Amino acid sequence: MKPIAITLGDPAGIGPEIIAKTFRDAPEVAAGCFVVGDVACLRRAVAAIGRPGKAPVPVAVIDAPEQAGQLPPRAIGVLQMGAALPALPWGRIDAAAGRLAAECVVWAARAALRGDVAALVTAPLHKEALALAGVGFPGHTELLQAEAAAFLGQPLEDLPVRMMLANDELRTVLVSIHVSLREAIEAVTVGNVLQTLRITHQAVGRSLERPPRIAVAGLNPHAGEGGRFGREELDIIVPALQAAQAEGIHATGPLAPDTVFMRARRGEFDAVVAMYHDQGLIPVKYLGVEQGVNVTLGLPLVRTSPDHGTAFDIAGTGEADPSSLMAAIRAARRLIS
Amino acid sequence: MKPIAITLGDPAGIGPEIIAKTFRDAPEVAAGCFVVGDVACLRRAVAAIGRPGKAPVPVAVIDAPEQAGQLPPRAIGVLQMGAALPALPWGRIDAAAGRLAAECVVWAARAALRGDVAALVTAPLHKEALALAGVGFPGHTELLQAEAAAFLGQPLEDLPVRMMLANDELRTVLVSIHVSLREAIEAVTVGNVLQTLRITHQAVGRSLERPPRIAVAGLNPHAGEGGRFGREELDIIVPALQAAQAEGIHATGPLAPDTVFMRARRGEFDAVVAMYHDQGLIPVKYLGVEQGVNVTLGLPLVRTSPDHGTAFDIAGTGEADPSSLMAAIRAARRLIS
Repeated sequence: MKPIAITLGDPAGIGPEIIAKTFRDAPEVAAGCFVVGDVACLRRAVAAIGRPGKAPVPVAVIDAPEQAGQLPPRAIGVLQMGAALPALPWGRIDAAAGRLAAECVVWAARAALRGDVAALVTAPLHKEALALAGVGFPGHTELLQAEAAAFLGQPLEDLPVRMMLANDELRTVLVSIHVSLREAIEAVTVGNVLQTLRITHQAVGRSLERPPRIAVAGLNPHAGEGGRFGREELDIIVPALQAAQAEGIHATGPLAPDTVFMRARRGEFDAVVAMYHDQGLIPVKYLGVEQGVNVTLGLPLVRTSPDHGTAFDIAGTGEADPSSLMAAIRAARRLIS
Repeated sequence: MKPIAITLGDPAGIGPEIIAKTFRDAPEVAAGCFVVGDVACLRRAVAAIGRPGKAPVPVAVIDAPEQAGQLPPRAIGVLQMGAALPALPWGRIDAAAGRLAAECVVWAARAALRGDVAALVTAPLHKEALALAGVGFPGHTELLQAEAAAFLGQPLEDLPVRMMLANDELRTVLVSIHVSLREAIEAVTVGNVLQTLRITHQAVGRSLERPPRIAVAGLNPHAGEGGRFGREELDIIVPALQAAQAEGIHATGPLAPDTVFMRARRGEFDAVVAMYHDQGLIPVKYLGVEQGVNVTLGLPLVRTSPDHGTAFDIAGTGEADPSSLMAAIRAARRLIS
């Protein structure tokens, strides 16, 4: 199997530490992975997570992805991006940090699009550091979308993407993400809901190797109770569902938002299409943010990421919890197997 | 301690059965409780939950609440409301059923307001049966609010109520309930949020016997990220929070909606004020609808109820799960102790 690229994330955040902990504490998870980043950064992270009396894990420079498989267990293979980064203070917004973090993602995205790596697992970026570095994208999703569009020679709007949040018991795919709740309601259109259903059907189906059973949440309490508390279910969600069903998609709904996630958790559905960010993220994160994995659906590459940010407040302390990164690597492996 | 009144709920729904199961299977929970309802209905429910080779629990007519404590364990004391109800088909909307169900609630509300009973635990009503019976209230909350206003001789608007949903690990109080999401956004006003904070502070504080630590969820993803995804946090929620804090209420926020419930579950807060129905109900119901309890806050009486409806589809089969009713009785007992 081709190697998996783990991107460094913002060097001033917890990315390097959770990567180093994953190689050290879960060599079976890290096997076949390498880091796209900066050697000095990783060495500093290894020192930050160090424990008295325990030898630090080695950090090895590699020249090509396929060398990842030749290193001993626990050794961190790093593909150096450009010149070595000078040591930056932990937890500080920095243009150089933002620039390097973006370079790593661009390199890994191109490698994945070319087929040189099987998947990308991305450590967290810091939006303000990206902006300070002049990177014209607010985050991973937009950056990857642009790279994919350029690679395929297609306009951006032909590459709709959706965010899926998943843990061991629930997959939820969002119609919209980082917009106000008012704008999220406006984004509930027949086109957007149908597109979300198509992307969910295709991506989750590929991973399960069968057509997924998709639940569609309503927008309003009790899914509107037949129009008594809002008409979006009748006017928008039902037509989108019917169009999807006509295409052979196994979609059910619109279902009451307050119980659909519990029903999916109990096994009734393989995925839930949520109408807005918090509707889908509250249940995924309720049992603990560490287990959540973010998967970008709709792109011609596999990308997963931990479900948390750079945590500047604890960067460099060695306290960061690598569980979500480990879960993201496992999820990527399931998606490419 | 004064007895607790359990109202029958819609006689064609699962109310009578979950009541009968509670007396039969959890006599320690049912101790000190009696039913406001109809003797024949309860006898039919006892038969519906019957198991071969096991004697059915006795149903005894009582004339006054205080006789509840004189019955042997597992015996169901019933205060008959009016004439005996003719046997109705299970699971059918019926005016007579709606009328009786409402009568039971009115009787129990007045008894609680007079101080004859310590609390009401209400089995589920059916909205359409109420409407068919000409009852001018869509549900329990409005009915109880009207009874309390009449008892106190106050206008309705002086008796603001809020719905709290609670299970063993989370309490959430809602700014609005059964309105569309668009209307729920409009209901996020300084006055409504502040009133919710005051009611939560008072009611949860009474139950905990100390000032509760209240988290306030944002309305928008990431609580708006400083105005980037909506301004309701800055323009409405923060001023309401500051006004509450100035009154000595321990309120924190606005916090990101997708993690605030997880944080409360881990013990950081005693209650979460949620900006709309599904924001608060998705996390309470995620782990299983049976454990959820609905508590009406703001009234001069204690009222709890199970967190589910009449379940007409399984009424009469004996399959209904009494867990949520049991949890509601336990919650009522905690609130009056």
